[in-house]
Amino acid sequence: MTYSVCIFVFDNVEVLDFAGPYEVFTTASRVYGKQNLLSSVTPFEVFTIGKIKESVRARAGLKIDPDFDFKTHPKIDVLLIPGGVITEALKDASVINWIASISKQTKLTASICTGAFLLAKAGLLEGKSATTHWEDIEDLRVMFPHLDVKEQMRWVDEGSIVTSAGISAGIDMSLHLVERLVNRDLALHTARQMEFDWTENG
Amino acid sequence: MTYSVCIFVFDNVEVLDFAGPYEVFTTASRVYGKQNLLSSVTPFEVFTIGKIKESVRARAGLKIDPDFDFKTHPKIDVLLIPGGVITEALKDASVINWIASISKQTKLTASICTGAFLLAKAGLLEGKSATTHWEDIEDLRVMFPHLDVKEQMRWVDEGSIVTSAGISAGIDMSLHLVERLVNRDLALHTARQMEFDWTENG
Repeated sequence: MTYSVCIFVFDNVEVLDFAGPYEVFTTASRVYGKQNLLSSVTPFEVFTIGKIKESVRARAGLKIDPDFDFKTHPKIDVLLIPGGVITEALKDASVINWIASISKQTKLTASICTGAFLLAKAGLLEGKSATTHWEDIEDLRVMFPHLDVKEQMRWVDEGSIVTSAGISAGIDMSLHLVERLVNRDLALHTARQMEFDWTENG
Repeated sequence: MTYSVCIFVFDNVEVLDFAGPYEVFTTASRVYGKQNLLSSVTPFEVFTIGKIKESVRARAGLKIDPDFDFKTHPKIDVLLIPGGVITEALKDASVINWIASISKQTKLTASICTGAFLLAKAGLLEGKSATTHWEDIEDLRVMFPHLDVKEQMRWVDEGSIVTSAGISAGIDMSLHLVERLVNRDLALHTARQMEFDWTENG
């Protein structure tokens, strides 16, 4: 099957938070294609989504145009919520409500870095373990005291909800998801194609 | 001083090739700002440039709007040429000529992954050592027999010209440039902020 992977982008999203996973899932599909020349199936289709279909300015200014918006988009199997400066998104009920409602339909929803705060606000982490950027661990504990916030983990996999540590840990988590959704061989070959030294949980 | 870092983007540019270095230099400036609260100087200003000022579609579809184009842009201290599918750019005399002429004015020009082919075509690697993605080492040797193509290196630093290995090696090389242009402490803190395990040359 082909999983549709949707990455939420917003003003001040951290560039590597969304670009790292984007690279992993698109590269995994390319590597899979080379390994399975007779197959027309690709494991992942990746697209970006914005709250509205207007350009967003990622952190430090990179300008990206999302493929879709909250109102009109294909079915989402894997929803990825990156972090960055999430202050505005956290206060935006339309963002939080969308994450909460769409996550009922996804196979899994995952956050990168401070994206965990958005999942927590959307009520997706209640009674679950989670992680975030090392600098924000304490804030996550204080703001959401019912969470079991883990440190020193590249990612925390709670089945339908997965959270990762900061920035580049999103690449490690995405490789883990490639392993989980397809197989370990594809995750290893994807890391090799990216010349990336995959750090797994200890 | 503030170095202006210019990243060339084009159709089918590899996402992590440009996004990794973008993250490194912008994060380095942020980290520097936290460490030097009384200073108003940031070490790096980062922007993207396209051949013309129109959206480009990075590899697999990510749509980005470059900040500037070949005709109008600020002074460039550090020019970064990412890779990806470079077949069209390699045949485009306006791209190759621009890289050749603008590199005479930069402090340094660096490539990521198959971006090395564009530097070679622009004549910047004559008689120099260089590297590229492991999958493209042989092609680089065949197409440009005067180069000394190195394997198993994360980057090759030839002073005004620096080349890196594939995709994520652009992050390692960018951290090296942060060390070279500012200092090692800032490079290490930037890697820590990105939760990135910096792989240096052995």
